Amino acid sequence: MHQTAEMINANPSRAVIQVDVLVECIEACLTCTQINLACADACLGEPEPQELSRCIRLNLDCADICTATGRIVSRQHKPEMYLLRKQLESCVFACQICASECELHQKEHEHCRICAEQCRRTERVCQQMLDQLVQGEGAVQRRAAQRPS
Amino acid sequence: MHQTAEMINANPSRAVIQVDVLVECIEACLTCTQINLACADACLGEPEPQELSRCIRLNLDCADICTATGRIVSRQHKPEMYLLRKQLESCVFACQICASECELHQKEHEHCRICAEQCRRTERVCQQMLDQLVQGEGAVQRRAAQRPS
Amino acid sequence: MHQTAEMINANPSRAVIQVDVLVECIEACLTCTQINLACADACLGEPEPQELSRCIRLNLDCADICTATGRIVSRQHKPEMYLLRKQLESCVFACQICASECELHQKEHEHCRICAEQCRRTERVCQQMLDQLVQGEGAVQRRAAQRPS
Amino acid sequence: MHQTAEMINANPSRAVIQVDVLVECIEACLTCTQINLACADACLGEPEPQELSRCIRLNLDCADICTATGRIVSRQHKPEMYLLRKQLESCVFACQICASECELHQKEHEHCRICAEQCRRTERVCQQMLDQLVQGEGAVQRRAAQRPS
Repeated sequence: MHQTAEMINANPSRAVIQVDVLVECIEACLTCTQINLACADACLGEPEPQELSRCIRLNLDCADICTATGRIVSRQHKPEMYLLRKQLESCVFACQICASECELHQKEHEHCRICAEQCRRTERVCQQMLDQLVQGEGAVQRRAAQRPS
Repeated sequence: MHQTAEMINANPSRAVIQVDVLVECIEACLTCTQINLACADACLGEPEPQELSRCIRLNLDCADICTATGRIVSRQHKPEMYLLRKQLESCVFACQICASECELHQKEHEHCRICAEQCRRTERVCQQMLDQLVQGEGAVQRRAAQRPS
Repeated sequence: MHQTAEMINANPSRAVIQVDVLVECIEACLTCTQINLACADACLGEPEPQELSRCIRLNLDCADICTATGRIVSRQHKPEMYLLRKQLESCVFACQICASECELHQKEHEHCRICAEQCRRTERVCQQMLDQLVQGEGAVQRRAAQRPS
Repeated sequence: MHQTAEMINANPSRAVIQVDVLVECIEACLTCTQINLACADACLGEPEPQELSRCIRLNLDCADICTATGRIVSRQHKPEMYLLRKQLESCVFACQICASECELHQKEHEHCRICAEQCRRTERVCQQMLDQLVQGEGAVQRRAAQRPS
Protein backbone atom coordinates (compact mmCIF):
# COMPACT_ATOMS: atom_id res chain seq x y z
CA MET A 1 0.00 0.00 0.00
CA HIS A 2 2.56 2.56 -1.13
CA GLN A 3 -0.50 4.57 -2.29
CA THR A 4 -1.37 5.32 1.33
CA ALA A 5 1.90 7.25 1.76
CA GLU A 6 1.48 8.99 -1.61
CA MET A 7 -2.01 10.11 -0.62
CA ILE A 8 -0.79 11.56 2.66
CA ASN A 9 1.76 13.65 0.80
CA ALA A 10 -0.79 14.71 -1.84
CA ASN A 11 -3.22 15.96 0.82
CA PRO A 12 -3.36 19.77 1.09
CA SER A 13 -3.68 19.41 4.88
CA ARG A 14 -0.38 18.57 6.51
CA ALA A 15 -0.22 15.33 8.52
CA VAL A 16 -0.21 15.88 12.30
CA ILE A 17 2.09 12.93 12.79
CA GLN A 18 5.28 11.62 11.16
CA VAL A 19 4.21 10.17 7.80
CA ASP A 20 5.76 6.72 8.29
CA VAL A 21 4.08 6.29 11.69
CA LEU A 22 0.77 7.35 10.17
CA VAL A 23 1.10 4.95 7.22
CA GLU A 24 1.99 2.06 9.51
CA CYS A 25 -1.00 2.80 11.71
CA ILE A 26 -3.48 3.03 8.81
CA GLU A 27 -2.19 -0.14 7.19
CA ALA A 28 -2.12 -2.08 10.45
CA CYS A 29 -5.74 -1.13 11.23
CA LEU A 30 -6.99 -2.11 7.77
CA THR A 31 -5.07 -5.38 7.66
CA CYS A 32 -6.20 -6.18 11.20
CA THR A 33 -9.85 -5.69 10.19
CA GLN A 34 -9.45 -8.12 7.30
CA ILE A 35 -7.53 -10.72 9.30
CA ASN A 36 -10.06 -10.60 12.14
CA LEU A 37 -13.00 -11.08 9.75
CA ALA A 38 -11.16 -13.99 8.14
CA CYS A 39 -10.36 -15.52 11.56
CA ALA A 40 -14.03 -15.27 12.61
CA ASP A 41 -14.99 -17.02 9.37
CA ALA A 42 -12.34 -19.71 9.79
CA CYS A 43 -13.42 -20.33 13.42
CA LEU A 44 -17.03 -20.66 12.25
CA GLY A 45 -16.00 -23.37 9.78
CA GLU A 46 -14.20 -25.48 12.40
CA PRO A 47 -15.92 -28.70 13.55
CA GLU A 48 -16.56 -27.28 17.05
CA PRO A 49 -17.21 -23.54 16.60
CA GLN A 50 -18.80 -23.23 20.06
CA GLU A 51 -15.33 -23.69 21.58
CA LEU A 52 -14.22 -20.65 19.59
CA SER A 53 -17.32 -18.52 20.18
CA ARG A 54 -15.53 -15.98 22.37
CA CYS A 55 -12.79 -15.75 19.76
CA ILE A 56 -15.37 -15.07 17.01
CA ARG A 57 -17.03 -12.42 19.15
CA LEU A 58 -13.77 -10.64 19.90
CA ASN A 59 -12.66 -10.94 16.24
CA LEU A 60 -15.81 -9.09 15.19
CA ASP A 61 -15.41 -6.43 17.90
CA CYS A 62 -11.75 -5.93 17.02
CA ALA A 63 -12.61 -5.64 13.30
CA ASP A 64 -15.23 -2.97 14.05
CA ILE A 65 -12.86 -0.92 16.20
CA CYS A 66 -9.92 -1.23 13.79
CA THR A 67 -12.20 -0.15 10.93
CA ALA A 68 -13.30 3.00 12.76
CA THR A 69 -9.75 3.79 13.85
CA GLY A 70 -8.22 3.26 10.38
CA ARG A 71 -10.85 5.51 8.81
CA ILE A 72 -10.39 8.34 11.31
CA VAL A 73 -6.60 8.19 11.12
CA SER A 74 -6.90 8.35 7.30
CA ARG A 75 -8.32 11.88 7.53
CA GLN A 76 -5.83 14.75 7.76
CA HIS A 77 -8.16 17.73 7.46
CA LYS A 78 -8.66 19.56 10.78
CA PRO A 79 -8.42 16.54 13.07
CA GLU A 80 -9.54 16.53 16.69
CA MET A 81 -6.43 15.25 18.49
CA TYR A 82 -8.12 14.12 21.69
CA LEU A 83 -10.67 12.10 19.70
CA LEU A 84 -7.81 10.37 17.87
CA ARG A 85 -6.32 9.52 21.26
CA LYS A 86 -9.54 8.11 22.70
CA GLN A 87 -10.16 5.94 19.63
CA LEU A 88 -6.54 4.75 19.50
CA GLU A 89 -6.76 3.78 23.18
CA SER A 90 -9.86 1.73 22.47
CA CYS A 91 -8.10 0.13 19.51
CA VAL A 92 -4.96 -0.74 21.50
CA PHE A 93 -7.11 -2.49 24.09
CA ALA A 94 -9.25 -4.30 21.48
CA CYS A 95 -6.14 -5.67 19.77
CA GLN A 96 -4.62 -6.69 23.10
CA ILE A 97 -7.67 -8.60 24.33
CA CYS A 98 -8.29 -10.24 20.95
CA ALA A 99 -4.63 -11.28 20.65
CA SER A 100 -4.79 -12.85 24.15
CA GLU A 101 -7.88 -14.85 23.16
CA CYS A 102 -6.40 -15.98 19.81
CA GLU A 103 -3.18 -17.03 21.54
CA LEU A 104 -5.19 -19.56 23.57
CA HIS A 105 -6.05 -21.38 20.34
CA GLN A 106 -2.93 -20.81 18.28
CA LYS A 107 -1.49 -24.28 18.78
CA GLU A 108 -4.55 -25.96 17.31
CA HIS A 109 -5.54 -23.28 14.80
CA GLU A 110 -3.10 -21.64 12.42
CA HIS A 111 -5.68 -18.90 11.66
CA CYS A 112 -5.71 -17.92 15.34
CA ARG A 113 -1.91 -17.77 15.33
CA ILE A 114 -1.85 -15.44 12.30
CA CYS A 115 -4.60 -13.30 13.81
CA ALA A 116 -2.87 -13.06 17.22
CA GLU A 117 0.30 -11.91 15.48
CA GLN A 118 -1.53 -9.25 13.46
CA CYS A 119 -3.37 -8.01 16.57
CA ARG A 120 -0.06 -7.69 18.47
CA ARG A 121 1.42 -5.73 15.55
CA THR A 122 -1.58 -3.40 15.40
CA GLU A 123 -1.53 -2.92 19.17
CA ARG A 124 2.16 -1.90 18.97
CA VAL A 125 1.72 0.41 15.98
CA CYS A 126 -1.34 2.15 17.46
CA GLN A 127 0.51 2.57 20.77
CA GLN A 128 3.42 4.15 18.85
CA MET A 129 1.06 6.64 17.21
CA LEU A 130 -0.59 7.33 20.57
CA ASP A 131 2.85 8.06 22.08
CA GLN A 132 3.60 10.54 19.30
CA LEU A 133 0.26 12.27 19.80
CA VAL A 134 0.79 12.60 23.56
CA GLN A 135 4.37 13.85 23.05
CA GLY A 136 3.12 16.31 20.42
CA GLU A 137 0.59 17.71 22.86
CA GLY A 138 3.25 17.85 25.55
CA ALA A 139 5.51 19.84 23.19
CA VAL A 140 2.68 22.27 22.42
CA GLN A 141 2.07 22.76 26.15
CA ARG A 142 5.80 23.29 26.86
CA ARG A 143 6.03 25.87 24.07
CA ALA A 144 2.98 27.63 25.48
CA ALA A 145 4.49 27.60 28.99
CA GLN A 146 7.78 29.05 27.74
CA ARG A 147 6.18 31.97 25.94
CA PRO A 148 7.27 35.25 27.54
CA SER A 149 4.31 36.85 29.24
CA MET B 1 -37.03 -0.37 16.12
CA HIS B 2 -39.06 -2.52 18.53
CA GLN B 3 -37.24 -5.44 16.82
CA THR B 4 -34.03 -4.44 18.62
CA ALA B 5 -35.64 -5.15 21.99
CA GLU B 6 -37.23 -8.36 20.72
CA MET B 7 -33.84 -9.57 19.49
CA ILE B 8 -32.19 -8.90 22.85
CA ASN B 9 -34.83 -11.03 24.56
CA ALA B 10 -34.54 -13.79 21.93
CA ASN B 11 -30.76 -14.04 22.39
CA PRO B 12 -29.67 -17.14 24.35
CA SER B 13 -26.95 -15.01 26.03
CA ARG B 14 -28.36 -12.78 28.75
CA ALA B 15 -27.86 -9.02 28.34
CA VAL B 16 -25.22 -7.59 30.69
CA ILE B 17 -27.16 -4.35 31.03
CA GLN B 18 -30.80 -3.39 31.60
CA VAL B 19 -32.60 -4.09 28.32
CA ASP B 20 -34.11 -0.62 27.91
CA VAL B 21 -30.73 1.08 28.44
CA LEU B 22 -29.16 -1.28 25.90
CA VAL B 23 -31.89 -0.66 23.31
CA GLU B 24 -31.62 3.10 23.74
CA CYS B 25 -27.87 2.92 23.30
CA ILE B 26 -27.99 0.76 20.16
CA GLU B 27 -30.69 2.88 18.55
CA ALA B 28 -28.97 6.15 19.42
CA CYS B 29 -25.68 4.96 17.89
CA LEU B 30 -27.33 3.79 14.67
CA THR B 31 -29.46 6.89 14.27
CA CYS B 32 -26.45 9.08 15.05
CA THR B 33 -24.44 7.38 12.30
CA GLN B 34 -27.17 8.06 9.76
CA ILE B 35 -27.76 11.66 10.85
CA ASN B 36 -24.04 12.43 10.76
CA LEU B 37 -23.66 11.00 7.26
CA ALA B 38 -26.66 13.04 6.15
CA CYS B 39 -25.28 16.19 7.80
CA ALA B 40 -21.91 15.73 6.04
CA ASP B 41 -23.78 15.36 2.75
CA ALA B 42 -25.96 18.41 3.41
CA CYS B 43 -22.89 20.51 4.37
CA LEU B 44 -21.20 19.41 1.14
CA GLY B 45 -24.17 20.68 -0.86
CA GLU B 46 -24.12 24.16 0.72
CA PRO B 47 -22.82 27.05 -1.43
CA GLU B 48 -19.71 27.47 0.77
CA PRO B 49 -18.76 23.97 1.97
CA GLN B 50 -15.25 25.08 2.96
CA GLU B 51 -16.79 26.98 5.89
CA LEU B 52 -18.26 23.69 7.05
CA SER B 53 -15.21 21.52 6.37
CA ARG B 54 -14.46 20.85 10.03
CA CYS B 55 -18.12 19.96 10.56
CA ILE B 56 -17.97 17.46 7.65
CA ARG B 57 -14.78 15.95 9.03
CA LEU B 58 -16.21 15.52 12.53
CA ASN B 59 -19.51 14.19 11.11
CA LEU B 60 -17.58 11.44 9.35
CA ASP B 61 -15.47 10.64 12.43
CA CYS B 62 -18.56 10.58 14.65
CA ALA B 63 -20.38 8.30 12.18
CA ASP B 64 -17.44 5.86 12.16
CA ILE B 65 -17.24 5.73 15.95
CA CYS B 66 -21.01 5.42 16.45
CA THR B 67 -21.08 2.58 13.89
CA ALA B 68 -18.39 0.61 15.72
CA THR B 69 -20.01 1.28 19.10
CA GLY B 70 -23.52 0.32 17.96
CA ARG B 71 -22.24 -2.93 16.45
CA ILE B 72 -20.28 -3.95 19.54
CA VAL B 73 -23.12 -3.09 21.90
CA SER B 74 -25.44 -5.21 19.69
CA ARG B 75 -23.52 -8.36 20.62
CA GLN B 76 -24.51 -10.12 23.84
CA HIS B 77 -22.42 -13.28 23.62
CA LYS B 78 -19.43 -13.26 26.02
CA PRO B 79 -18.72 -9.53 25.93
CA GLU B 80 -15.50 -7.95 27.16
CA MET B 81 -16.77 -5.31 29.58
CA TYR B 82 -13.67 -3.13 29.65
CA LEU B 83 -13.63 -2.99 25.84
CA LEU B 84 -17.26 -1.83 25.87
CA ARG B 85 -16.22 0.90 28.32
CA LYS B 86 -13.28 2.11 26.25
CA GLN B 87 -15.38 2.25 23.07
CA LEU B 88 -18.29 3.98 24.83
CA GLU B 89 -15.88 6.57 26.22
CA SER B 90 -14.59 7.28 22.72
CA CYS B 91 -18.17 7.52 21.49
CA VAL B 92 -19.25 9.92 24.24
CA PHE B 93 -16.37 12.22 23.34
CA ALA B 94 -16.98 11.97 19.58
CA CYS B 95 -20.64 12.94 20.05
CA GLN B 96 -19.71 15.79 22.39
CA ILE B 97 -17.14 17.35 20.05
CA CYS B 98 -19.31 16.90 16.98
CA ALA B 99 -22.32 18.43 18.74
CA SER B 100 -20.22 21.45 19.76
CA GLU B 101 -19.12 21.97 16.16
CA CYS B 102 -22.66 21.56 14.74
CA GLU B 103 -24.01 24.00 17.32
CA LEU B 104 -21.77 26.71 15.84
CA HIS B 105 -23.72 26.42 12.57
CA GLN B 106 -27.19 25.60 13.80
CA LYS B 107 -28.62 29.07 13.33
CA GLU B 108 -27.80 29.08 9.62
CA HIS B 109 -28.20 25.37 8.92
CA GLU B 110 -31.18 23.33 10.09
CA HIS B 111 -29.26 20.11 9.29
CA CYS B 112 -26.58 21.11 11.79
CA ARG B 113 -29.24 21.80 14.42
CA ILE B 114 -30.81 18.35 13.95
CA CYS B 115 -27.38 16.71 14.00
CA ALA B 116 -26.27 18.57 17.14
CA GLU B 117 -29.44 17.44 18.89
CA GLN B 118 -28.92 13.79 17.89
CA CYS B 119 -25.26 13.91 18.99
CA ARG B 120 -26.27 15.30 22.40
CA ARG B 121 -28.85 12.53 22.77
CA THR B 122 -26.32 9.83 21.83
CA GLU B 123 -23.73 11.32 24.19
CA ARG B 124 -26.26 11.17 27.05
CA VAL B 125 -27.45 7.65 26.27
CA CYS B 126 -23.91 6.26 25.90
CA GLN B 127 -22.92 7.95 29.17
CA GLN B 128 -25.92 6.31 30.85
CA MET B 129 -24.81 2.89 29.61
CA LEU B 130 -21.25 3.63 30.70
CA ASP B 131 -22.50 4.52 34.20
CA GLN B 132 -24.36 1.20 34.42
CA LEU B 133 -21.28 -0.71 33.32
CA VAL B 134 -19.08 1.00 35.89
CA GLN B 135 -21.67 0.45 38.64
CA GLY B 136 -22.01 -3.19 37.60
CA GLU B 137 -18.27 -3.69 37.95
CA GLY B 138 -18.33 -1.91 41.30
CA ALA B 139 -21.09 -4.28 42.49
CA VAL B 140 -19.08 -7.32 41.41
CA GLN B 141 -16.04 -6.01 43.29
CA ARG B 142 -18.09 -5.31 46.43
CA ARG B 143 -19.57 -8.81 46.34
CA ALA B 144 -16.06 -10.24 45.99
CA ALA B 145 -14.82 -8.14 48.93
CA GLN B 146 -17.69 -9.29 51.18
CA ARG B 147 -17.07 -12.97 50.58
CA PRO B 148 -16.02 -14.69 53.84
CA SER B 149 -12.40 -15.72 53.63
CA MET C 1 -36.21 7.99 13.33
CA HIS C 2 -38.29 11.06 12.42
CA GLN C 3 -34.89 12.82 12.23
CA THR C 4 -34.13 10.96 9.00
CA ALA C 5 -37.06 12.65 7.28
CA GLU C 6 -36.20 16.04 8.81
CA MET C 7 -32.64 15.73 7.52
CA ILE C 8 -33.81 14.95 3.99
CA ASN C 9 -35.91 18.10 3.99
CA ALA C 10 -33.07 20.19 5.48
CA ASN C 11 -30.62 19.06 2.76
CA PRO C 12 -29.92 21.78 0.16
CA SER C 13 -29.86 19.05 -2.53
CA ARG C 14 -33.34 17.91 -3.47
CA ALA C 15 -34.13 14.19 -2.96
CA VAL C 16 -34.26 12.22 -6.21
CA ILE C 17 -37.00 9.99 -4.85
CA GLN C 18 -40.26 10.54 -2.94
CA VAL C 19 -39.24 11.41 0.63
CA ASP C 20 -41.33 8.72 2.34
CA VAL C 21 -39.92 5.98 0.09
CA LEU C 22 -36.40 7.24 0.79
CA VAL C 23 -36.94 7.33 4.55
CA GLU C 24 -38.41 3.83 4.57
CA CYS C 25 -35.45 2.53 2.57
CA ILE C 26 -32.80 4.16 4.81
CA GLU C 27 -34.50 2.98 8.00
CA ALA C 28 -35.04 -0.55 6.69
CA CYS C 29 -31.36 -0.87 5.70
CA LEU C 30 -30.10 0.39 9.06
CA THR C 31 -32.49 -1.73 11.10
CA CYS C 32 -31.69 -4.76 8.94
CA THR C 33 -27.96 -4.31 9.62
CA GLN C 34 -28.57 -4.25 13.36
CA ILE C 35 -30.98 -7.19 13.36
CA ASN C 36 -28.61 -9.30 11.24
CA LEU C 37 -25.67 -8.60 13.54
CA ALA C 38 -27.85 -9.49 16.53
CA CYS C 39 -29.05 -12.69 14.81
CA ALA C 40 -25.47 -13.75 14.04
CA ASP C 41 -24.59 -13.17 17.70
CA ALA C 42 -27.65 -15.07 18.94
CA CYS C 43 -26.89 -18.01 16.59
CA LEU C 44 -23.32 -18.06 17.91
CA GLY C 45 -24.62 -18.39 21.47
CA GLU C 46 -26.86 -21.38 20.68
CA PRO C 47 -25.71 -24.82 21.95
CA GLU C 48 -25.05 -26.06 18.38
CA PRO C 49 -23.82 -23.04 16.40
CA GLN C 50 -22.40 -25.24 13.61
CA GLU C 51 -25.98 -26.02 12.52
CA LEU C 52 -26.48 -22.27 12.08
CA SER C 53 -23.14 -21.51 10.45
CA ARG C 54 -24.63 -20.69 7.04
CA CYS C 55 -27.16 -18.45 8.78
CA ILE C 56 -24.36 -16.59 10.61
CA ARG C 57 -22.41 -16.20 7.37
CA LEU C 58 -25.40 -14.81 5.47
CA ASN C 59 -26.33 -12.56 8.43
CA LEU C 60 -22.88 -10.96 8.24
CA ASP C 61 -23.01 -10.60 4.44
CA CYS C 62 -26.50 -9.10 4.60
CA ALA C 63 -25.41 -6.67 7.34
CA ASP C 64 -22.44 -5.52 5.22
CA ILE C 65 -24.58 -4.96 2.12
CA CYS C 66 -27.40 -3.22 4.02
CA THR C 67 -24.83 -0.93 5.66
CA ALA C 68 -23.35 0.12 2.32
CA THR C 69 -26.81 0.58 0.79
CA GLY C 70 -28.18 2.61 3.70
CA ARG C 71 -25.15 4.91 3.65
CA ILE C 72 -25.31 5.54 -0.09
CA VAL C 73 -29.06 6.13 -0.06
CA SER C 74 -28.53 8.63 2.79
CA ARG C 75 -26.60 10.95 0.45
CA GLN C 76 -28.63 13.35 -1.67
CA HIS C 77 -25.86 15.45 -3.20
CA LYS C 78 -25.25 14.63 -6.91
CA PRO C 79 -26.10 10.93 -6.78
CA GLU C 80 -25.20 8.46 -9.50
CA MET C 81 -28.53 6.82 -10.26
CA TYR C 82 -27.23 3.68 -11.91
CA LEU C 83 -24.92 3.04 -8.96
CA LEU C 84 -27.88 3.32 -6.59
CA ARG C 85 -29.69 0.75 -8.76
CA LYS C 86 -26.81 -1.73 -8.79
CA GLN C 87 -26.37 -1.51 -5.02
CA LEU C 88 -30.12 -1.77 -4.36
CA GLU C 89 -30.26 -4.88 -6.58
CA SER C 90 -27.47 -6.46 -4.56
CA CYS C 91 -29.32 -5.52 -1.36
CA VAL C 92 -32.64 -6.95 -2.52
CA PHE C 93 -30.93 -10.27 -3.29
CA ALA C 94 -28.96 -10.31 -0.02
CA CYS C 95 -32.15 -9.78 2.00
CA GLN C 96 -33.99 -12.44 -0.01
CA ILE C 97 -31.35 -15.13 0.43
CA CYS C 98 -30.80 -14.31 4.10
CA ALA C 99 -34.56 -14.36 4.78
CA SER C 100 -34.83 -17.79 3.10
CA GLU C 101 -32.06 -19.16 5.30
CA CYS C 102 -33.49 -17.65 8.51
CA GLU C 103 -36.93 -19.05 7.67
CA LEU C 104 -35.46 -22.56 7.82
CA HIS C 105 -34.69 -22.03 11.50
CA GLN C 106 -37.57 -19.80 12.58
CA LYS C 107 -39.56 -22.54 14.30
CA GLU C 108 -36.71 -23.35 16.67
CA HIS C 109 -35.20 -19.88 16.97
CA GLU C 110 -37.22 -16.75 17.61
CA HIS C 111 -34.20 -14.60 16.62
CA CYS C 112 -34.24 -16.19 13.16
CA ARG C 113 -37.97 -15.48 12.85
CA ILE C 114 -37.48 -11.80 13.72
CA CYS C 115 -34.52 -11.55 11.35
CA ALA C 116 -36.37 -13.25 8.47
CA GLU C 117 -39.22 -10.81 8.91
CA GLN C 118 -36.91 -7.79 8.89
CA CYS C 119 -35.07 -9.10 5.80
CA ARG C 120 -38.39 -9.55 3.95
CA ARG C 121 -39.38 -5.99 4.89
CA THR C 122 -36.04 -4.59 3.69
CA GLU C 123 -36.24 -6.61 0.47
CA ARG C 124 -39.70 -5.13 -0.23
CA VAL C 125 -38.74 -1.55 0.63
CA CYS C 126 -35.53 -1.65 -1.44
CA GLN C 127 -37.49 -3.14 -4.37
CA GLN C 128 -39.98 -0.28 -4.04
CA MET C 129 -37.18 2.28 -4.22
CA LEU C 130 -35.64 0.42 -7.16
CA ASP C 131 -39.00 0.54 -9.00
CA GLN C 132 -39.19 4.31 -8.45
CA LEU C 133 -35.65 4.77 -9.74
CA VAL C 134 -36.32 2.71 -12.88
CA GLN C 135 -39.60 4.56 -13.51
CA GLY C 136 -37.83 7.89 -13.02
CA GLU C 137 -35.21 6.97 -15.60
CA GLY C 138 -37.93 5.77 -17.95
CA ALA C 139 -39.66 9.15 -17.59
CA VAL C 140 -36.41 10.99 -18.36
CA GLN C 141 -35.88 8.83 -21.45
CA ARG C 142 -39.47 9.40 -22.64
CA ARG C 143 -39.08 13.14 -22.18
CA ALA C 144 -35.83 13.01 -24.17
CA ALA C 145 -37.48 10.95 -26.95
CA GLN C 146 -40.39 13.40 -27.18
CA ARG C 147 -38.16 16.43 -27.58
CA PRO C 148 -38.63 18.00 -31.03
CA SER C 149 -35.48 17.45 -33.07
CA MET D 1 -0.64 -8.23 3.17
CA HIS D 2 0.87 -11.72 2.81
CA GLN D 3 -1.28 -12.56 5.87
CA THR D 4 -4.40 -12.44 3.69
CA ALA D 5 -3.10 -15.35 1.60
CA GLU D 6 -1.97 -17.24 4.70
CA MET D 7 -5.41 -16.86 6.24
CA ILE D 8 -7.13 -18.22 3.13
CA ASN D 9 -4.97 -21.32 3.29
CA ALA D 10 -5.52 -21.70 7.06
CA ASN D 11 -9.31 -21.60 6.65
CA PRO D 12 -10.98 -25.02 7.04
CA SER D 13 -13.42 -24.06 4.25
CA ARG D 14 -11.82 -24.30 0.82
CA ALA D 15 -11.72 -21.11 -1.27
CA VAL D 16 -14.23 -21.11 -4.14
CA ILE D 17 -11.85 -19.16 -6.34
CA GLN D 18 -8.13 -19.37 -7.21
CA VAL D 19 -6.29 -18.08 -4.12
CA ASP D 20 -4.23 -15.44 -5.92
CA VAL D 21 -7.33 -13.95 -7.58
CA LEU D 22 -9.10 -13.90 -4.22
CA VAL D 23 -6.17 -12.22 -2.46
CA GLU D 24 -5.87 -9.58 -5.18
CA CYS D 25 -9.59 -8.86 -4.94
CA ILE D 26 -9.62 -8.53 -1.14
CA GLU D 27 -6.54 -6.32 -1.10
CA ALA D 28 -7.79 -4.13 -3.94
CA CYS D 29 -11.14 -3.56 -2.19
CA LEU D 30 -9.52 -2.67 1.14
CA THR D 31 -6.90 -0.38 -0.39
CA CYS D 32 -9.57 1.26 -2.55
CA THR D 33 -11.67 2.02 0.53
CA GLN D 34 -8.72 3.71 2.21
CA ILE D 35 -7.64 5.65 -0.88
CA ASN D 36 -11.19 6.88 -1.51
CA LEU D 37 -11.59 8.07 2.08
CA ALA D 38 -8.23 9.86 1.81
CA CYS D 39 -9.21 11.42 -1.54
CA ALA D 40 -12.50 12.69 -0.08
CA ASP D 41 -10.54 14.22 2.81
CA ALA D 42 -7.95 15.78 0.49
CA CYS D 43 -10.71 17.22 -1.74
CA LEU D 44 -12.38 18.70 1.34
CA GLY D 45 -9.14 20.48 2.25
CA GLU D 46 -8.72 22.12 -1.18
CA PRO D 47 -9.43 25.87 -1.41
CA GLU D 48 -12.55 25.27 -3.57
CA PRO D 49 -14.10 22.01 -2.32
CA GLN D 50 -17.46 22.76 -3.99
CA GLU D 51 -15.81 22.11 -7.37
CA LEU D 52 -14.94 18.65 -6.09
CA SER D 53 -18.25 17.92 -4.36
CA ARG D 54 -19.30 15.20 -6.82
CA CYS D 55 -15.85 13.64 -6.46
CA ILE D 56 -16.21 13.60 -2.64
CA ARG D 57 -19.68 12.08 -2.92
CA LEU D 58 -18.53 9.31 -5.26
CA ASN D 59 -15.40 8.69 -3.14
CA LEU D 60 -17.64 8.03 -0.14
CA ASP D 61 -20.00 5.79 -2.14
CA CYS D 62 -17.10 3.86 -3.63
CA ALA D 63 -15.51 3.42 -0.19
CA ASP D 64 -18.79 2.04 1.20
CA ILE D 65 -19.22 -0.44 -1.65
CA CYS D 66 -15.58 -1.56 -1.62
CA THR D 67 -15.82 -2.11 2.15
CA ALA D 68 -18.87 -4.35 1.83
CA THR D 69 -17.35 -6.24 -1.11
CA GLY D 70 -13.99 -6.79 0.57
CA ARG D 71 -15.67 -8.09 3.73
CA ILE D 72 -17.93 -10.52 1.89
CA VAL D 73 -15.11 -11.81 -0.33
CA SER D 74 -13.04 -12.36 2.86
CA ARG D 75 -15.48 -15.06 4.02
CA GLN D 76 -14.95 -18.58 2.71
CA HIS D 77 -17.49 -20.52 4.76
CA LYS D 78 -20.58 -21.54 2.73
CA PRO D 79 -20.68 -18.55 0.39
CA GLU D 80 -23.68 -17.65 -1.75
CA MET D 81 -22.15 -17.34 -5.22
CA TYR D 82 -24.87 -15.27 -6.82
CA LEU D 83 -24.67 -12.75 -3.97
CA LEU D 84 -20.92 -12.45 -4.52
CA ARG D 85 -21.65 -11.77 -8.20
CA LYS D 86 -24.26 -9.09 -7.53
CA GLN D 87 -22.00 -7.29 -5.06
CA LEU D 88 -18.95 -7.55 -7.33
CA GLU D 89 -21.00 -6.08 -10.19
CA SER D 90 -21.97 -3.13 -8.00
CA CYS D 91 -18.32 -2.73 -7.01
CA VAL D 92 -17.03 -2.82 -10.60
CA PHE D 93 -19.47 -0.06 -11.52
CA ALA D 94 -18.71 2.04 -8.42
CA CYS D 95 -14.97 1.92 -9.20
CA GLN D 96 -15.58 2.74 -12.86
CA ILE D 97 -17.75 5.79 -12.19
CA CYS D 98 -15.50 7.06 -9.40
CA ALA D 99 -12.38 6.64 -11.57
CA SER D 100 -14.05 8.62 -14.39
CA GLU D 101 -14.86 11.46 -12.00
CA CYS D 102 -11.36 11.50 -10.45
CA GLU D 103 -9.79 11.50 -13.90
CA LEU D 104 -11.50 14.85 -14.60
CA HIS D 105 -9.44 16.39 -11.78
CA GLN D 106 -6.19 14.44 -12.01
CA LYS D 107 -4.22 17.18 -13.76
CA GLU D 108 -4.83 19.66 -10.95
CA HIS D 109 -4.97 17.22 -8.05
CA GLU D 110 -2.43 14.48 -7.49
CA HIS D 111 -4.76 12.82 -4.94
CA CYS D 112 -7.41 12.42 -7.65
CA ARG D 113 -4.82 10.86 -9.97
CA ILE D 114 -3.78 8.31 -7.33
CA CYS D 115 -7.41 7.56 -6.53
CA ALA D 116 -8.39 7.15 -10.20
CA GLU D 117 -5.54 4.69 -10.65
CA GLN D 118 -6.56 2.66 -7.59
CA CYS D 119 -10.22 2.62 -8.72
CA ARG D 120 -9.19 1.35 -12.18
CA ARG D 121 -7.09 -1.39 -10.56
CA THR D 122 -9.96 -2.45 -8.28
CA GLU D 123 -12.41 -2.40 -11.18
CA ARG D 124 -10.09 -4.73 -13.15
CA VAL D 125 -9.43 -7.10 -10.25
CA CYS D 126 -13.12 -7.36 -9.29
CA GLN D 127 -14.01 -7.99 -12.94
CA GLN D 128 -11.41 -10.76 -13.02
CA MET D 129 -12.96 -12.41 -9.96
CA LEU D 130 -16.43 -11.99 -11.48
CA ASP D 131 -15.23 -13.72 -14.67
CA GLN D 132 -13.91 -16.65 -12.64
CA LEU D 133 -17.19 -16.93 -10.74
CA VAL D 134 -19.26 -16.93 -13.93
CA GLN D 135 -16.92 -19.49 -15.56
CA GLY D 136 -17.09 -21.66 -12.44
CA GLU D 137 -20.88 -21.65 -12.57
CA GLY D 138 -20.75 -22.42 -16.29
CA ALA D 139 -18.51 -25.41 -15.54
CA VAL D 140 -20.92 -26.66 -12.88
CA GLN D 141 -23.82 -26.36 -15.32
CA ARG D 142 -21.90 -28.19 -18.06
CA ARG D 143 -21.03 -31.00 -15.67
CA ALA D 144 -24.69 -31.24 -14.66
CA ALA D 145 -25.81 -31.30 -18.33
CA GLN D 146 -23.32 -34.07 -19.16
CA ARG D 147 -24.50 -36.36 -16.38
CA PRO D 148 -26.06 -39.53 -17.83
CA SER D 149 -29.78 -39.56 -17.14
